[in-house]
Amino acid sequence: GFLKEVIFFPTELACVEHVFEPTLQCLCPLPHGLETSLARLLRHVLSAKSTMDICVFAFSNMDLSRAVLALHSRGLVIRILIDKDYGGISGSQIGPLRRAGIRVRYDSGAVHMHHKFALVDGRRLVTGSLNWTLQAVQKNKENVMVTEEPRLVTPFVNEFQRLWDANDPE
Amino acid sequence: GFLKEVIFFPTELACVEHVFEPTLQCLCPLPHGLETSLARLLRHVLSAKSTMDICVFAFSNMDLSRAVLALHSRGLVIRILIDKDYGGISGSQIGPLRRAGIRVRYDSGAVHMHHKFALVDGRRLVTGSLNWTLQAVQKNKENVMVTEEPRLVTPFVNEFQRLWDANDPE
Ligand SMILES: [Zn+2]
Ligand SMILES: [Zn+2]
Repeated sequence: GFLKEVIFFPTELACVEHVFEPTLQCLCPLPHGLETSLARLLRHVLSAKSTMDICVFAFSNMDLSRAVLALHSRGLVIRILIDKDYGGISGSQIGPLRRAGIRVRYDSGAVHMHHKFALVDGRRLVTGSLNWTLQAVQKNKENVMVTEEPRLVTPFVNEFQRLWDANDPE
Repeated sequence: GFLKEVIFFPTELACVEHVFEPTLQCLCPLPHGLETSLARLLRHVLSAKSTMDICVFAFSNMDLSRAVLALHSRGLVIRILIDKDYGGISGSQIGPLRRAGIRVRYDSGAVHMHHKFALVDGRRLVTGSLNWTLQAVQKNKENVMVTEEPRLVTPFVNEFQRLWDANDPE
């Protein structure tokens, strides 16, 4: 059947350097070599081959930002949709991501754009309760579901495109 | 295949009385007879036959509270797990639900218990970005996924039981 996976948070406290640089021997003081919840989430993001569409209320997590920047430097087409009130707050990664050249739009059509989903190559859905923040990953009880089941993925693909088009600034 | 459904919010503004009382002719000024996002969510809650386990950060929505109270009055076994900081805030439905005799536990093991899921009869999972509040239902862009796929449901069943046991006040 299609890929189906559930990941619970908070993540275990451990280094995720090996997800980015498998051959590097990291010297930081955190535990190494663990496939933590965060490591699993990062691997799904880094698995993208062509496109990554991200629709999240909040995006301040530096590990997730590093993963998206890595995709961007590989030449993938990345689109980020973020809540209008969130994009500019302290610690937001939206500024650095925009300055790197990634396309970002701000949702202004609702009190809050409260989604927390991403679409990897338009066919792997990553969704749940988890905002892309440090607190959510390290401190909160959260869930992320990963699925390639078309009957779950397709509605999110359509919703992303609808919101992206609705928030075209031009 | 197994039931799979995605519901997006905000809901359309319409009366949901028909979900609770199909034979009643409601006289309120809202539009009637629409299967809105909220109506569909309420039908999933009301479909429970034996148990309902709810694990949500916030619960202030009166329609969802009415649905849970209806299940309780039918004799179903209901358990509610709520964030420790949320249970007592203004507008919370936790007080009325507790006073009706429904079992409630407060999660105190994390900065926030940020889940937003429910398990209908231990086999239908209702999860997503939607807190069970009025604002989330009526104002925010949100998603709810409903599935009976065991590989997605079982991890949530286990996580609910783990959190329920961990927050036993006795
Ligand atoms: Zn390290
Ligand atoms: Zn009415």
